[in-house]
Amino acid sequence: MGKQTPNVKIIPLGGLNEIGKNITVIEYKNDIIVIDCGIIFPEDEMLGIDVVIPDITYLEKNKEKIRAIVLTHGHEDHIGALPYVLKKINVPVYGTKLTLGLVENKLIEKGIKNATLNVVKPGQKTKLGSMVVEYITANHSIPDAVSLAIHTPEGAIVHTGDFKIDYTPINGDMMDLNRFADLGSRGVLALLADSTNVERPGSTMSEKTVGNTFNDIFKTAEGRIIVATFASNVHRVQQIINAAVMFNRKVVVSGRSMINVVRVSTELGYLDAPEGTIIDINDMNKYPDNEITIITTGSQGEPMAALSRLASSDHRKMELIPGDLVIISATPIPGNEKTVSRVINQLFKKGAKVIYEALADVHVSGHACQEELKLIHSLVKPKYFIPVHGEYRHLNQHAQLAEDLGMKRDNIFIMENGSVLELGRSYAKVNGSIPSGNILVDGLGIGDVGNIVLRDRKHLSEDGLIVVVVTIKKENGKVVSGPDIVSRGFVYVRESEDLMDEARRVVRDVLKECEKNQITDWSTLKSSVRDALRNFLYQKIKRNPMILPIIMEV
Amino acid sequence: MGKQTPNVKIIPLGGLNEIGKNITVIEYKNDIIVIDCGIIFPEDEMLGIDVVIPDITYLEKNKEKIRAIVLTHGHEDHIGALPYVLKKINVPVYGTKLTLGLVENKLIEKGIKNATLNVVKPGQKTKLGSMVVEYITANHSIPDAVSLAIHTPEGAIVHTGDFKIDYTPINGDMMDLNRFADLGSRGVLALLADSTNVERPGSTMSEKTVGNTFNDIFKTAEGRIIVATFASNVHRVQQIINAAVMFNRKVVVSGRSMINVVRVSTELGYLDAPEGTIIDINDMNKYPDNEITIITTGSQGEPMAALSRLASSDHRKMELIPGDLVIISATPIPGNEKTVSRVINQLFKKGAKVIYEALADVHVSGHACQEELKLIHSLVKPKYFIPVHGEYRHLNQHAQLAEDLGMKRDNIFIMENGSVLELGRSYAKVNGSIPSGNILVDGLGIGDVGNIVLRDRKHLSEDGLIVVVVTIKKENGKVVSGPDIVSRGFVYVRESEDLMDEARRVVRDVLKECEKNQITDWSTLKSSVRDALRNFLYQKIKRNPMILPIIMEV
Repeated sequence: MGKQTPNVKIIPLGGLNEIGKNITVIEYKNDIIVIDCGIIFPEDEMLGIDVVIPDITYLEKNKEKIRAIVLTHGHEDHIGALPYVLKKINVPVYGTKLTLGLVENKLIEKGIKNATLNVVKPGQKTKLGSMVVEYITANHSIPDAVSLAIHTPEGAIVHTGDFKIDYTPINGDMMDLNRFADLGSRGVLALLADSTNVERPGSTMSEKTVGNTFNDIFKTAEGRIIVATFASNVHRVQQIINAAVMFNRKVVVSGRSMINVVRVSTELGYLDAPEGTIIDINDMNKYPDNEITIITTGSQGEPMAALSRLASSDHRKMELIPGDLVIISATPIPGNEKTVSRVINQLFKKGAKVIYEALADVHVSGHACQEELKLIHSLVKPKYFIPVHGEYRHLNQHAQLAEDLGMKRDNIFIMENGSVLELGRSYAKVNGSIPSGNILVDGLGIGDVGNIVLRDRKHLSEDGLIVVVVTIKKENGKVVSGPDIVSRGFVYVRESEDLMDEARRVVRDVLKECEKNQITDWSTLKSSVRDALRNFLYQKIKRNPMILPIIMEV
Repeated sequence: MGKQTPNVKIIPLGGLNEIGKNITVIEYKNDIIVIDCGIIFPEDEMLGIDVVIPDITYLEKNKEKIRAIVLTHGHEDHIGALPYVLKKINVPVYGTKLTLGLVENKLIEKGIKNATLNVVKPGQKTKLGSMVVEYITANHSIPDAVSLAIHTPEGAIVHTGDFKIDYTPINGDMMDLNRFADLGSRGVLALLADSTNVERPGSTMSEKTVGNTFNDIFKTAEGRIIVATFASNVHRVQQIINAAVMFNRKVVVSGRSMINVVRVSTELGYLDAPEGTIIDINDMNKYPDNEITIITTGSQGEPMAALSRLASSDHRKMELIPGDLVIISATPIPGNEKTVSRVINQLFKKGAKVIYEALADVHVSGHACQEELKLIHSLVKPKYFIPVHGEYRHLNQHAQLAEDLGMKRDNIFIMENGSVLELGRSYAKVNGSIPSGNILVDGLGIGDVGNIVLRDRKHLSEDGLIVVVVTIKKENGKVVSGPDIVSRGFVYVRESEDLMDEARRVVRDVLKECEKNQITDWSTLKSSVRDALRNFLYQKIKRNPMILPIIMEV
C-alpha cells in the first residue's frame, strides 16, 4: 500500500534524547530489521512506574515486514523490552551466545516459550530479506558485544552499538578495527555511533586497569573483601575471581541477578573459575575472613540489592563485620548519586573500609571517549552520520565532533525518536515521522498509566488527600449523614484535631448554604465543597491536598 | 539545678552525617553560644516537604543561657533556619555585614521585625558571657565568610566554618592564615573543620581561574551571553560583570534571588559595577545581542528558576534565541544532576550553545580539598579534632586525614547530631546526648508532617488510591446506598471500566457475605472490604493502591 520508494529508512524508535530504550528500525522496501529492543528506567516524575518500554505501534502495523530483531549486546537498555515486544510480534531474534543466554533467562522469567533465538558469531553474516547483517566484535562492559554492518542495496549502514576500544580486553577479542577500516575503504553509507561519553576527552581506560587495582587492594587486605559491581559486567567479575584466586580467597556470589549472570556466563564459557573457588554462601563461615571474597549486586545503592541490605543489616545470610573491605566497582548512574552515597555512609558507620571511584581506580566506563570516537569516524568515513545513544547534549556534541573531523553539517542528522531518515546512495533527508514514545509499565498494566494518573499521583504525593463524604436524601437533597472527613498524607490528625474540626465546620457551612439556595445538583455541590475547603486549608496552612467530595444518596 | 561540671560542651545539633542544617552549640557553665542556624533541603522520600530545620528543643529549654547566635556566612545551610528559630528564641545574632544583610532580607520576607542583628568584622572579638568569640577572615564561595575562634576558660575552640584557601581572592581578603598560625602556636583545645571536599586530592582552584575562563569565552562570543550561577556567589557575579565591562556588554540581572543578592551586595559595597552597566531587563532590546550579558539563577535546574523558564520558553520577559551562549557556572548539587542535564538538553535544542563544567573551567568549589585541610590542621595543631560539615563518609575520611597527620585516634571525635562532647584542658569524652533531628516544614506547618504522613504520601504516589463508600442502615446494617468506588492515580478509569466493574462486584460480594454472617461492626466490615479488594487488584494487575473504605450510617 502506498508507493515504494527505493530508499533505505532509518527510524530510531528509542534511544535518542535519552540514555536507554534503544531500538532502531532499518527498512528497505518490504523488509524491516529491528536493532535492539531495550527498556529505560522511569524518570523521577513517573511515580510508581516500574519500567518504560518503547511504543511499537509502527512495528505492529508492519509486522509482516519484520525479518528479525538483531541484538548488539545483553544490557537491559538493549534487550529489556523483548518480553513485551515478542508477545506482540513474534519474530526471530539474532544475537551472540551470551546475549541470547541472558535473553533466554529473561524470557523464561516472563513465561515466554515460543521465541526463536538464533546464535550468531562475530564475522558471520545473516541474510534478512533484501539486507545482510554482519556482526563485528566490539568491546563494551559486557562480553560478546557486537557492532553491526547492515548491507543494504543502497549501501552499508554501520551501527557501533555500545562500544569502547580496549586494546587489552579480558578473556575476549579486541574490537575488530580492521573490519571497520575495511568497510570504510569500501564505502559506508551511514554511521550510527554511541554518544554516551562524547563529552569526555581522551580515551576510556582498559578494563584491565581495574584488575590491576584489584590486585593491589587484594594484596594487602586483611579481612573479607566485598566487591559490588554490575552483574552483567562479566569481565569485571572475572577479574575479581582472578584476584581472589591469586591471593588465595574463596568467592561467594550474592544477589539474585549476580547469581543468574554468573551461572549463565559460566555455563556458556564466558566466566572461568578454578574448581572449588566459588563456594556456597552457607559455607562461608568455614573459612577465615582473609580467605573470603564476596561478589555482590547493589553498586547503584538499589534498596533491595544485596549490598544495601548488608549496609542496613537486612541481609538474610550475611552480616557486615568491622574489618570488612567493601569495593564499589561502579560509578553511580545519573540519578543514583544519593542512594549510592547513603550506602557508602552506612558501610563506613558499620566499621567497614569502603573504596569507591573517588578514592581509587576501581571502575572504568564501557563507552568510548572522544579519541576513540574520532578513530571510528576516521576508519569508517561514512557519507552520513547519525549520533545515537545519548541525550540531546551528547548527540549535539557528537555531531560537533564529526564536523570538526571534516564532515559536512548537512550530512549529519541529529534525529528524534520516531523521525524517518530516508537514504539513498547520494542523498539523505528526514521525511516525516511515525508514532513513538514511552509506554509505562506498572505492575501488570502496560500503558494504562498516563499523564492524568501521574498528575494525580504527584498531587497526592505532595500534599496528600482529603475525602469528604456526605449522604443526602434523594427527594429533597437534605443532608442525612456526614459530612465525614478522612485524610491521608495530609497532617498528623491527632495533632491537628482543631484544624480538622474547623474543616468539618467549613464543609457544613457550605452544605447549609447550598441547601438554603436549593442547590442540589451534584457537580455544583461538589465543587462548592472543594473550593471552600481548598481556600480554607490554603489560607490556614498553605497546603493544597487533593480534595475528593463524595455524595451518597438514599 | 544539677551539678555544674567545669567543662566546655560541644553539641552539634545539625550538620553531621549530612551536608546542610549546620548548627552547633558551644556551652560553658551558664553560657551557650550557637554557631550557625541552617536548613537542609528535603530528601527525595520527604514527599511534599519544603525545607527541613533542626530540632531546637535543647535550645528552647536552655533559652536563658543563650548569649548569641554567631554566623559564619550567609548560605542557606547556615542561616536559613533563623526565621524559624528566632520566633522561638529571640537572642542577639552576630555576623559580618553581608551575612546579616542577607539575614535581614530573609527576616523581612518572613515578617520578623524584632531581631537584634550585630555587625562584626574579621579581627574583632565579642565577649559573650564567659566566652569570647573572635572572627577570622576565611575564603568561601560567598564574600564575608569567617572562621571562628571561641575562647573559653578551658581553651580555644577553632571552627573553620565553610572555607577554602584562595591565594588570589576576588574583591576580598585572603584567609587569615597568620591568625590560624598564631592561635596554633598559643595552643588550641579543639578544631572543628569543614569536611565537604575531603575526598578530593590537591587544592581547590582560585575563584580567579573562573574569571580567566569567562574572559576567554567573552572575547570570542558573538551573540548574547547568559550566565547562570548561585545568586550568593557574589565574587562570581563580580567576575561576570568585569568580563562584561571589559568586552563592552551591558548586564541584565534575572531571577528573584539574583536580583535580591545583587541589590543587597551592591548596597553594602560587595559588588561593584560601573554606572550604567546594569540595565533593566525591559531595556535589553535597545542593544545589539553582542552587547548583552544576562546573569541569572537556575544553575541547579530548579524548575521555577529563570534559566529553566528560558529553556522551556516559559520566561515572562525573555526568550532564548539561536546564537545565545549559555554558561552554567556551577556544579550540580548531588541529587540535581538530572534536572540540570534536562535544562542543558533543552537549551541545546533551542539552538543555544551551552558551556558547562564538563566542557570548560567555569566553576570552582568553595570548599577546601585535602592539601588545604592539611595546612589548616598543621597550623592550628589542635589537641582534639571534630570533623564537621559532611556525610559520614566525609567525616570518616577527614578523621583519617587527621590521623595521617599524626593525631592520636583517641583525640578525634566523629560525632553525631545531638551527641555531647565534654572537653577540659586535658580530656575529652562524648557523654550522652540531647534531642536533635529533622523538623519538616510543609507550607505553614512546622513539624506536623511525620513518618505516618510521609508513608501515606509514598503509598499514594506509587499506586494511587481507591475510595469505597457505602451507606448502611443504622438499625440492621443493611446497605442502602453504594458501594461507590472512586479512584485517583490508579488507572485510566475510562480504559479500565471492566476492572472497576469487577472491583465493585468484589466489594458487593464481601458486603453480602458480611450481611449474611451478621457482621455489622465497622472495623471488621472495613477490613473485609480492604482485604478482598487488595487481593483482587494485586492478582489482577499487580498493584497495591491505598484502599480507603468509608461507611456512612443513616
